Amino acid sequence: MMQYPEQLRKVMAFLAHLPGVGTRTAERMGIAMMSWKGEDLAAFGALLSSLKDNVGFCPKCGNYMERGGKCSICDDPSRQQDIICVVEQVAQIIVIEKSGCFKGIYHVLGGKLSPMSGVGPEDLRIEPLKERLASGTVKELLIATTPDVEGEATANYLAQLFSSQDLLVSRIAAGIPVGADLAFADPATLASAISGRRKI
Amino acid sequence: MMQYPEQLRKVMAFLAHLPGVGTRTAERMGIAMMSWKGEDLAAFGALLSSLKDNVGFCPKCGNYMERGGKCSICDDPSRQQDIICVVEQVAQIIVIEKSGCFKGIYHVLGGKLSPMSGVGPEDLRIEPLKERLASGTVKELLIATTPDVEGEATANYLAQLFSSQDLLVSRIAAGIPVGADLAFADPATLASAISGRRKI
Repeated sequence: MMQYPEQLRKVMAFLAHLPGVGTRTAERMGIAMMSWKGEDLAAFGALLSSLKDNVGFCPKCGNYMERGGKCSICDDPSRQQDIICVVEQVAQIIVIEKSGCFKGIYHVLGGKLSPMSGVGPEDLRIEPLKERLASGTVKELLIATTPDVEGEATANYLAQLFSSQDLLVSRIAAGIPVGADLAFADPATLASAISGRRKI
Repeated sequence: MMQYPEQLRKVMAFLAHLPGVGTRTAERMGIAMMSWKGEDLAAFGALLSSLKDNVGFCPKCGNYMERGGKCSICDDPSRQQDIICVVEQVAQIIVIEKSGCFKGIYHVLGGKLSPMSGVGPEDLRIEPLKERLASGTVKELLIATTPDVEGEATANYLAQLFSSQDLLVSRIAAGIPVGADLAFADPATLASAISGRRKI
């Protein structure tokens, strides 16, 4: 049976490691890349080769940061330094930033507690969070982990861990998405929306 | 608003050029790539940079070919050299090869006639096909363009073009896909299936 040339097969194998990309989609992408201009492929290749050399993580918050540069959030003097929003992944920082509703700083955990997958507190960036809170400048910890079983467990774990400190530990509200039809809400979301109701 | 570091943004911009990938998916892919090992990113980058240097097209059939190597189909002595299957794109060769039902050689047109998109005969690899047929070794031309309006127009154009030659011009059958429910067939496919019926 005819096969793609070896190098193209290797490119397709890498593409198949991207999220949501199976072998068929990777084939299609590889074929599309063969029609890219040589200089574009070279530029893309060079960017990838040096990606890790040029982009790293902020040692404080864990957000992406240009190596040798400043953290676009921690080092921004206009941000409140007394409230830390705890998220699982960097991608969640981006979403919160797009909402424009949070002016504090962040802390990326790198996941959530999941005994089933063998993820314990020592696998998350909890120790660095303790160190950041030790100075006492932070007054509020807003826990924005996903509102599922593991995210809630992580939130509760953190709330308990820091309960002895003079610190307000808060949790983002779970409820009906804005604009969504109540008829399509699942029972767990609806239960959260009712138990978390507020006076208007 | 917080932005991704510049180099990561550039990587995402390239990813967004892949088929079926929008800006959101490209973001997700870029984030996933940040968790790849540096050596994998470097290897993938190097493969892409040199892709066009190492993989080209067979000057005869237009299929992918390792540069300086042999065409895995044209140069395979076990393949029939007297029947050429005409396809639009290389991807279609792969699909036909997977079926294992065709033992001849191929010719990639690089598209199909489409006056609406400004694609005329001069934009397709028709001249090289003429040259291949001039020698007289080819006895059959199996036209496997997509069975849509433009694919049919291309097939008819080729049939007319080579009608004066001692050559059988054939067309792949259009009909109900094997295993599909007749109830879901569209009228055009059903019409093809009925007009192309054969004795059992």
